[in-house]
Amino acid sequence: MRLKAIIRYDGTFFSGYQVQPNGRTVQGVIEKVLTKMHKGNHVRVTASGRTDQGVHAVGQVIHFDTELEIPSENWLRALNTMLPDDVEVVSITEVPDDFHARYDVSEKEYRYYILHAQEKNLFRRHYTHFVEGELDLDAMYEASQHFLGSHDFSSFCAANSNVKGDKVRTITDITVNQEEKDIIVRVRGTGFLYNMVRIIVGTLIDIGLGKREPEEISEIIAAQDRSKAGKTAPPQGLYLWEVSYDKKSG
Amino acid sequence: MRLKAIIRYDGTFFSGYQVQPNGRTVQGVIEKVLTKMHKGNHVRVTASGRTDQGVHAVGQVIHFDTELEIPSENWLRALNTMLPDDVEVVSITEVPDDFHARYDVSEKEYRYYILHAQEKNLFRRHYTHFVEGELDLDAMYEASQHFLGSHDFSSFCAANSNVKGDKVRTITDITVNQEEKDIIVRVRGTGFLYNMVRIIVGTLIDIGLGKREPEEISEIIAAQDRSKAGKTAPPQGLYLWEVSYDKKSG
Repeated sequence: MRLKAIIRYDGTFFSGYQVQPNGRTVQGVIEKVLTKMHKGNHVRVTASGRTDQGVHAVGQVIHFDTELEIPSENWLRALNTMLPDDVEVVSITEVPDDFHARYDVSEKEYRYYILHAQEKNLFRRHYTHFVEGELDLDAMYEASQHFLGSHDFSSFCAANSNVKGDKVRTITDITVNQEEKDIIVRVRGTGFLYNMVRIIVGTLIDIGLGKREPEEISEIIAAQDRSKAGKTAPPQGLYLWEVSYDKKSG
Repeated sequence: MRLKAIIRYDGTFFSGYQVQPNGRTVQGVIEKVLTKMHKGNHVRVTASGRTDQGVHAVGQVIHFDTELEIPSENWLRALNTMLPDDVEVVSITEVPDDFHARYDVSEKEYRYYILHAQEKNLFRRHYTHFVEGELDLDAMYEASQHFLGSHDFSSFCAANSNVKGDKVRTITDITVNQEEKDIIVRVRGTGFLYNMVRIIVGTLIDIGLGKREPEEISEIIAAQDRSKAGKTAPPQGLYLWEVSYDKKSG
């Protein structure tokens, strides 16, 4: 039986999502709990994709296979009781055996929280990126719209990335909104390169601060050169917000 | 020269404010930084009062003596550069030699953040107390007004407290407000017993949930019996918000 789970996590004290030799990872703590439930038989979990150290998730999706016959509600309660307090299972449902949390992704949404206030907020230091100075929201919005559609995003991909194949990706929706003291950049797309959202946000911050003009985005994209874009915004403002699948996966 | 500093801290990863043999404390990290600045001569810091493990502060006040001749702005920058990222100095000013951060307090304000939402929020678990179920804000406000004035607060003092003298304290202002999904209990007073705010809030939550009536507060106070009041609300929702001094202390 294959199960699909939507999970949330606070990335602050994880060395990222993916299991690695040293360091506490989200995948690691989930597999540990599942393996315990399966009497020591290792259960492997597959996610929609990894997230970096310090990056959060409110709608990460994973799948795993099990022979345990437990009703959904009990799965939810059992996992949430056993998981540490910085990981949470939001829902868990049975899916067809051929559902795959990574291969079947149709779209992903990320949100990035910029704290746009007079002073930084100690209590949100792990959850927002504080930007000093006045940000021009209209300019940021105008700039963001140049990302829409399919482009070669080489300028917005970490230089050390070892992506195979081309770097054409499709942004289906991007917005820049203010809610109270937060500026929220929301990006939906069918696929993302390594650090792509954080470099987009870093570049939008430059535009908000008046260091660049909104029209420059098209030139930066066309250059296909990482050095033309802005800095990589820090991880703590980034949330993997939602992962969408085609209808067959329910 | 005596300096007064207003400090903020995220209490999550501290074993409280006050230095103790084991565990990381706010006082400990501040004294360590000051001692370093004074070439190894230990600098002792006095606060308006202690806060417990997990309790936050946005307006804690401390004083200490120094012979270093450094302008205020440089003090601020030096301390904030050297302090860990969960403690922050908001301001630092010279005060008369007889200013005392604890003895001269005229009033303190605490705020308690209750998260009143459909579901808990993983990213605010260290900063709010999530209460499940419907809270009646009007009933909580009505109840809160019974605390105003001077009373023997024995019913609202931790049973294991070793307070000397009487337990009469004066609440000068108390409000219950909703901001977005937070219910904020704001309490001002001239002095507080151990766990007093957290027991007041725990009792107000009972009233909000309809487990008790607002009028019961007067009876609970009159009983002078800790077992008559509600549970001690957990530390993570509590903030030492402001400490006020008489005019002489600037």
